[in-house]
Amino acid sequence: MKKIHLDPQTGVGFELLKGQRLKVIDPQGEQVADLFAFAFDNLGEWLSNGRSFDHNGTIYMRRGHVLYSNRSNPMLSVCEDTVDRHDFLFAPCSQEMFQIQYGIEDSHPNCLENLAGALRKFGVTPSMIATPFNIFMNVSIAPDGKLTIGKPRSKAGDYITLRAEMDLRVAVAACSAGICNNNLCKPIDLEIRA
Amino acid sequence: MKKIHLDPQTGVGFELLKGQRLKVIDPQGEQVADLFAFAFDNLGEWLSNGRSFDHNGTIYMRRGHVLYSNRSNPMLSVCEDTVDRHDFLFAPCSQEMFQIQYGIEDSHPNCLENLAGALRKFGVTPSMIATPFNIFMNVSIAPDGKLTIGKPRSKAGDYITLRAEMDLRVAVAACSAGICNNNLCKPIDLEIRA
Repeated sequence: MKKIHLDPQTGVGFELLKGQRLKVIDPQGEQVADLFAFAFDNLGEWLSNGRSFDHNGTIYMRRGHVLYSNRSNPMLSVCEDTVDRHDFLFAPCSQEMFQIQYGIEDSHPNCLENLAGALRKFGVTPSMIATPFNIFMNVSIAPDGKLTIGKPRSKAGDYITLRAEMDLRVAVAACSAGICNNNLCKPIDLEIRA
Repeated sequence: MKKIHLDPQTGVGFELLKGQRLKVIDPQGEQVADLFAFAFDNLGEWLSNGRSFDHNGTIYMRRGHVLYSNRSNPMLSVCEDTVDRHDFLFAPCSQEMFQIQYGIEDSHPNCLENLAGALRKFGVTPSMIATPFNIFMNVSIAPDGKLTIGKPRSKAGDYITLRAEMDLRVAVAACSAGICNNNLCKPIDLEIRA
């Protein structure tokens, strides 16, 4: 088993081969982890929330659900999940997002740069990052469509385990946006098992 | 004013310059039109549902809302809308989708190929098409996240008008999926005004 520790507001990129399991752990609680993935040998095949919504018939990915690529191939399946609430709607936080939503003009750590930076070694650029699977992010939708970001339901030690259904290049970032993490950005731990 | 008629299950690509208005009309009723867009001179800047959800605070784009790019720049704003229900969650229908969801093995017209084909002259490939703005598509979300596709609320002659907030390359397809269009694929009409 390989262990990876993500400091707050950082990201990491790695290969995850078919059958391997990725456990994403929230060691302190209330911390979001953005995950994005490409097919191992084809950057034109990427994690697609729109296909996952369609093929699973829901916006909430739960145990037993499959995360699909834009070509409708299974990428990751949800094997274990002690939280049962993750987001797949929001684009990753970005420099522009912090400027527009919060008026932050200075450079701010953000998931878009952390995900793209972690995958740069595989040839990925920021414009190739679509909507990540935002693990532990707690988004509610009112009947009129209004979105509300709540604090994550994850407590210290909670986790989700995803099994690779194809060979993948994966990036995970410990989310940098205070609003998603009950105003305190914390670390994320990863475990990769054969 | 330029008029474009889309036969059922076809698409078209065109330039829409800042300030121009695109009126998308459902001439017979209950017909979805998928729309996707890129910045005029940068295929790395594309229509982003995830940014639009974030900056508008809702999954339903209505009059006054702005559709944003992945770089958080305004692309299109909703000026007029006689229907008030459009989808921005579902990936465009595709050959693989028809195979998985409906067991269709033969070649089937689909929005992904129609959108990408219409934009091919600008250098676009299918893997560059993210989630379109699915005009007139009627999707409901239950509190548990379950998605239901209903028949469009659009009646014959209903329309939406979008104003370009930057110079754009746009594609629109008359959707090819029966389930989205009350089981009968119909035409779509477009009008472009200065």
